[in-house]
Amino acid sequence: MTLSTQPYKGSRDFYPEDKRLQKYMFATMRKVVEKFGYEEYDAPILEPTELFASKTSAEIVNEQTYTFNDRGDRSVTIRTEMTPSVSRMVAGRRQELAYPIRWYSIPNIWRYERPQRGRLREFWQLNVDIFGIDGIEADHEAILVADSIMREFKAKRDMYTIKINSRQLMDTLFADYLKLSNTQSHAMAQLIDRMHKMEYAEFVATLDALFQPNQRENGETELLLNFLNLKTINDLPGELRVHPSVLELQVLMDLLIKSGVTNFEFDPTLMRGFEYYSDIVFEVFDTHPENNRAMFGGGRYDGLVGLFGVEPVPTVGFGMGDVTLQNFLESHNLLPELRTETDAYVILIGDVYERAQPIFREFRKLGARLAVDATGRKPDKQIKTAVKKGIHYAIFIGEKELADGRFVLKNLISGSDERHGVERTVSIIKDYRQNGEVDESD
Amino acid sequence: MTLSTQPYKGSRDFYPEDKRLQKYMFATMRKVVEKFGYEEYDAPILEPTELFASKTSAEIVNEQTYTFNDRGDRSVTIRTEMTPSVSRMVAGRRQELAYPIRWYSIPNIWRYERPQRGRLREFWQLNVDIFGIDGIEADHEAILVADSIMREFKAKRDMYTIKINSRQLMDTLFADYLKLSNTQSHAMAQLIDRMHKMEYAEFVATLDALFQPNQRENGETELLLNFLNLKTINDLPGELRVHPSVLELQVLMDLLIKSGVTNFEFDPTLMRGFEYYSDIVFEVFDTHPENNRAMFGGGRYDGLVGLFGVEPVPTVGFGMGDVTLQNFLESHNLLPELRTETDAYVILIGDVYERAQPIFREFRKLGARLAVDATGRKPDKQIKTAVKKGIHYAIFIGEKELADGRFVLKNLISGSDERHGVERTVSIIKDYRQNGEVDESD
Repeated sequence: MTLSTQPYKGSRDFYPEDKRLQKYMFATMRKVVEKFGYEEYDAPILEPTELFASKTSAEIVNEQTYTFNDRGDRSVTIRTEMTPSVSRMVAGRRQELAYPIRWYSIPNIWRYERPQRGRLREFWQLNVDIFGIDGIEADHEAILVADSIMREFKAKRDMYTIKINSRQLMDTLFADYLKLSNTQSHAMAQLIDRMHKMEYAEFVATLDALFQPNQRENGETELLLNFLNLKTINDLPGELRVHPSVLELQVLMDLLIKSGVTNFEFDPTLMRGFEYYSDIVFEVFDTHPENNRAMFGGGRYDGLVGLFGVEPVPTVGFGMGDVTLQNFLESHNLLPELRTETDAYVILIGDVYERAQPIFREFRKLGARLAVDATGRKPDKQIKTAVKKGIHYAIFIGEKELADGRFVLKNLISGSDERHGVERTVSIIKDYRQNGEVDESD
Repeated sequence: MTLSTQPYKGSRDFYPEDKRLQKYMFATMRKVVEKFGYEEYDAPILEPTELFASKTSAEIVNEQTYTFNDRGDRSVTIRTEMTPSVSRMVAGRRQELAYPIRWYSIPNIWRYERPQRGRLREFWQLNVDIFGIDGIEADHEAILVADSIMREFKAKRDMYTIKINSRQLMDTLFADYLKLSNTQSHAMAQLIDRMHKMEYAEFVATLDALFQPNQRENGETELLLNFLNLKTINDLPGELRVHPSVLELQVLMDLLIKSGVTNFEFDPTLMRGFEYYSDIVFEVFDTHPENNRAMFGGGRYDGLVGLFGVEPVPTVGFGMGDVTLQNFLESHNLLPELRTETDAYVILIGDVYERAQPIFREFRKLGARLAVDATGRKPDKQIKTAVKKGIHYAIFIGEKELADGRFVLKNLISGSDERHGVERTVSIIKDYRQNGEVDESD
């Protein structure tokens, strides 16, 4: 039987050009989060199944996990998100850690879904979490970090919007303002979370049906629909406008403006699916007409660490997926051209592989990244290979070069060549690596 | 029910200090392989199960895989090694790729084993492969890259040994010299592969039993045992000494010496478990008495890509695991002291979080990596946190500092402090990041 060369459905092979793009995205993320003092951690991709049950969204646990029994009959699950694992790790050293702690990770994550644009079964997700700050400063920092990453990718402020809401405000709205029962509130939250995935008329009908007849007669359906249409906290009815959760939203927005972030908006329809969010939630939206959807988000989840039998820790975090990010960067034309890391392709002329060994060592000792052809093919075939690989320089080594210690360095783009010793050659190729081609016609 | 804070058996949590060590190891590997022109790739951790069947060692497939059916009833396996995946990827673009190709990856890998020193269920493994060179130059380069990585970790030549053998020599020995049947040869190879895991007497008895009575009478048991005790190819019996596979071993060893590698030896007991090896095999041994075992290895496997229904590609590669490597570095005292990436801890005095935002931006724009405490605790508690985190500097910001734009920079190790503007402060902390503390008493 001939084996298929396709990767498993919904997952990706990363050929070097794909991996380069991924490394660029991850390096940019790392650069930003480390400027905010975040340290990288990691956890196993397999976790005991009970870690995910009841914490993640019900949809994910029931329909999207990769769960199975290991050879010792232990039920394990491939992680569907990183939050349960990082909460477990903090709980495991609850007493020893120095708070506030700032941690990040870029794990791969699996969800059994129907693959489509922006959604695959395997994806990577930057996870950024701050533990131990109960004030709004943590929420502010999380949004600021997310925004700074977008800016580091050269995104302009009109390319994305940051939507912000407060779960506590929603709880107050449901319980105190609309006098909904717990069951009604829960159903309402779940419905609103799905509203942008359904027709508006269907949404209104479903919402209306969740009210009791007397509530409906009181005009609560309209009240709620009007509320969901609000674009600013200033239009909230008086008693809600001064509710602590709204005053907190106000402080948060003032902080964002002070930090230079302007493209945010209050969005009362923003619920975030995960059950564990307890207060401020936010989501970054791609405004490009091709995408026009939530890219990633996060919020406060103060209760999760406490599930491990230790004292709870106030926590704010967000996750940023690689697939929607890459779509964003492509649609907005923000992807840089990325080159191979190999500086030069070494073309051997004649039978000199053995005698050239000390030369290769010298080049590499000085930091040059050299691929030696070593196939024994004719030089023109070797040059073709170098060009196909997109390598900028070729270095020719034959009898003559071994004898006089000077090597032909050929620029494969311009076609020009020059002859130098090892040190000068390395200095030229390193200069190109750092600064690119300098246009000499200027 | 209280959830456990332990990771799944045989896997590891990487707290920031652990992750730093892993990142140091991976960065060192990347630095070296990129100097040899290798480019990074990646593949999904889940693969269709048939990818592993019949290619990996039988022991791994039958006893150590994590295999299960997905929600669509497709049998999938968590990778137990990277070689089948990379072969699949090369086969998938067999015609388009520019040979020779040099690829590397540092995937995590899972095997259901009993956890013990040097062996865990989840580990990471540098995979280095060169496709498209059928000459001994590829084998030479693979060993040279492996050696260069060890040297980059500051390993001395007496800390490890590179053992080399030729599967073709073994085939010749079995078939032409000892006249063993195919079945006998296969059993013999498997037995020799296990010989260092059993008592010598038991090994000899089992080996003896694999011979036919007439072979035994001919003294073949002794012939084979003598052969397995050889330390150099020069002691091979005349007709084997000039066999092409041995002449090739000779060329390989000459090349290694020319490249500065001296700590290698011929080891006829080296088989390497994987079925797919077809010629030269090698293994790097840790000579430290605490470990004294194979750390990692590789060899030539020309037949694998062809299993995907395309023209075969000559291939040489090796895999280097993180667990045995870390044991090696620890036993030989080769681990450097690694510091947090955070340059400075910002301690706020009074209610200045909002007004300090533009200052934070300025610091970060210049490249400083700052963690802002933001808990509102008293300064002495904030300092304690910074010290516990091992951060080198603290920066104090209060009303006075906001007013005059100069900030106290406190060295938390020496206790000394100085007061500067943003630019000078960033220049000092960056200098420390790059060069460490300069002893001023010198």
